[in-house]
Amino acid sequence: MAMKTTALIMAGGRGERFWPKSRRSLPKQFLSLTDDGKTMIQLTVERILPLVAPEDIYIATNRDYKALVREQLPEVPEENILCEPVGKNTAPCIGLGAEHMKKKYGDAMMLVLPSDHLIKYNTIFINTLEDAIDVAAEGKNLVTIGITPDAPETGYGYIRLKSNERCRRAFKVDRFVEKPDLERAKEYLASEEYLWNSGMFVWKVSTVLENLQKYLPDTFAGLERIGAAVGTANEQAVLEKEFSAFKAESIDYGIMEKAKNIYILTGAFGWDDVGSWLAVGRIKKSNEFGNVIDGNVITVDTKNTIVQGGKKLLAVVGVKDLIIVDTEDALLVCDKHSAGSIKKVVENLQICNRTEYL
Amino acid sequence: MAMKTTALIMAGGRGERFWPKSRRSLPKQFLSLTDDGKTMIQLTVERILPLVAPEDIYIATNRDYKALVREQLPEVPEENILCEPVGKNTAPCIGLGAEHMKKKYGDAMMLVLPSDHLIKYNTIFINTLEDAIDVAAEGKNLVTIGITPDAPETGYGYIRLKSNERCRRAFKVDRFVEKPDLERAKEYLASEEYLWNSGMFVWKVSTVLENLQKYLPDTFAGLERIGAAVGTANEQAVLEKEFSAFKAESIDYGIMEKAKNIYILTGAFGWDDVGSWLAVGRIKKSNEFGNVIDGNVITVDTKNTIVQGGKKLLAVVGVKDLIIVDTEDALLVCDKHSAGSIKKVVENLQICNRTEYL
Repeated sequence: MAMKTTALIMAGGRGERFWPKSRRSLPKQFLSLTDDGKTMIQLTVERILPLVAPEDIYIATNRDYKALVREQLPEVPEENILCEPVGKNTAPCIGLGAEHMKKKYGDAMMLVLPSDHLIKYNTIFINTLEDAIDVAAEGKNLVTIGITPDAPETGYGYIRLKSNERCRRAFKVDRFVEKPDLERAKEYLASEEYLWNSGMFVWKVSTVLENLQKYLPDTFAGLERIGAAVGTANEQAVLEKEFSAFKAESIDYGIMEKAKNIYILTGAFGWDDVGSWLAVGRIKKSNEFGNVIDGNVITVDTKNTIVQGGKKLLAVVGVKDLIIVDTEDALLVCDKHSAGSIKKVVENLQICNRTEYL
Repeated sequence: MAMKTTALIMAGGRGERFWPKSRRSLPKQFLSLTDDGKTMIQLTVERILPLVAPEDIYIATNRDYKALVREQLPEVPEENILCEPVGKNTAPCIGLGAEHMKKKYGDAMMLVLPSDHLIKYNTIFINTLEDAIDVAAEGKNLVTIGITPDAPETGYGYIRLKSNERCRRAFKVDRFVEKPDLERAKEYLASEEYLWNSGMFVWKVSTVLENLQKYLPDTFAGLERIGAAVGTANEQAVLEKEFSAFKAESIDYGIMEKAKNIYILTGAFGWDDVGSWLAVGRIKKSNEFGNVIDGNVITVDTKNTIVQGGKKLLAVVGVKDLIIVDTEDALLVCDKHSAGSIKKVVENLQICNRTEYL
């Protein structure tokens, strides 16, 4: 009989690139950025339902967002919402999920997924995950999903594959590399040997825990103590004690750059990491002038502009290539070419302690 | 003894070029567009106080704005607020003022001034008005103030002077011409014989009434009946009856293009008709990046932009040459080169019966 398939959805991020819609109290994964009105995390859960039952979906987040997860994902059991007491990057987060799954099922197939990416072709995505599960089920393979680059992006990690070593449809991974500079990214693109690291992983719970034990033994020991306390009166106290002692470490750096038996599947399912407001221009339906308009908006002689209106009437006249986002207490007017500078606004707000806008 | 000096300030306009700040319920003359926080009409009154006592200042407006006038100009007696029952352009408006002044003083010197222009050099302005009063006091002269053009503007009327005919510092007027096309405006500019029509006039009450009698006899007859009823129980009824029967006519077309003895004084007092949001960029203090900023605003990499913030935080990133105006219920984002298209927004709102935004 096939192993139970579970999923850990990572939803602890506090992105600032969708300010002023995204706030500390409402990060990107809880926003709706698509025309269907569903939030990113809702779409993430919906997408994997053909493979994973709601009671086998775990959400890793933190206490501040627990209420949002409950509200947006009522189908996920409350005990599956894992609140990290403090952010320690992805390795402890994934380990925490694995301990819960081990406690419940002994072993299980584990999908690890970001909560804030979009995928256009859900059927292809499910097929890819099924292939990944097949590869992860053989021995002690760690499987990752790579995205075929179409530009020398410097904002992603890259994964080099070995085109002559395969396991089923997957390639053996030669190495993980962190975000490159532009020159190196161009080399990677030209080499046709590198894929983008999508942050999606598939493995058995037992496999990832073994690798944690091998490469991050201190973290593993703490995770085991947390696992032992799950369901006991001490659970929360042990979680807080152990977690605060963990070294912050990404799964990429902590394990994937060192481990053996890593395989990569190419994901050709219309992936978008929705990295900035510019993505909304790609994702949402635009009108004949290239404008993407939501809300109470009048446009005159306006082109290629994203307008996310709020309650008030927004009149936009004679502009092009702008991002205009209205919210209850803050409004952004930004040139598309300066979307990367929105973080400067957030920095300024932090420096000036204007926390009401963060 | 010198004649009493009175002023009629015309404040019935319903401009739409300052939308969304200006509304039907709050036109430009009642807005503050300068750094001192005073409204246009308040500045207009303050400016002439060296020449005219508050009780001799009359405000021509309509019923909708009477409360605003009372609120913004508490020093002007209530009986001096003349509410036109219906707009009939400037000739009936000026005639109405003249009748009130005649009733009170028999004859008086009358300054006629728009309520929504700015003047930078008040002392020079007062000197110019004093010169105009001297010219108007001689015989039956009609005196106008002309602005020396610095560009071939097509938005103003022009006045041709006769450089060889003078009365004191004033030139005799050859003719009034309505707003020209660009080619003609260029000719006017090159000729050095044309000044812009500022809409400011100085004359005796008796002189303007005589000219009304001569060139607009029907209107004059009605005005006389209104004048006779001032202070009686019938005043309002007569005003409404007569006014509604008047032909709408501008003072320029109705009298100035036909009358004799018209003189013009050049006004070199830093005049600005504040015709659009662009004017705010000229009038208000700009920072080192050429931005004119009011309110709760953060700018990043932004140049030559006018931001009129409201209550909410306005973050402006990577833009230039924009006009951004926030109000309680509407927000404008407009390229400076498209300021003339703001009226299209207002038109659209009218067509769609979205009167709450007008």
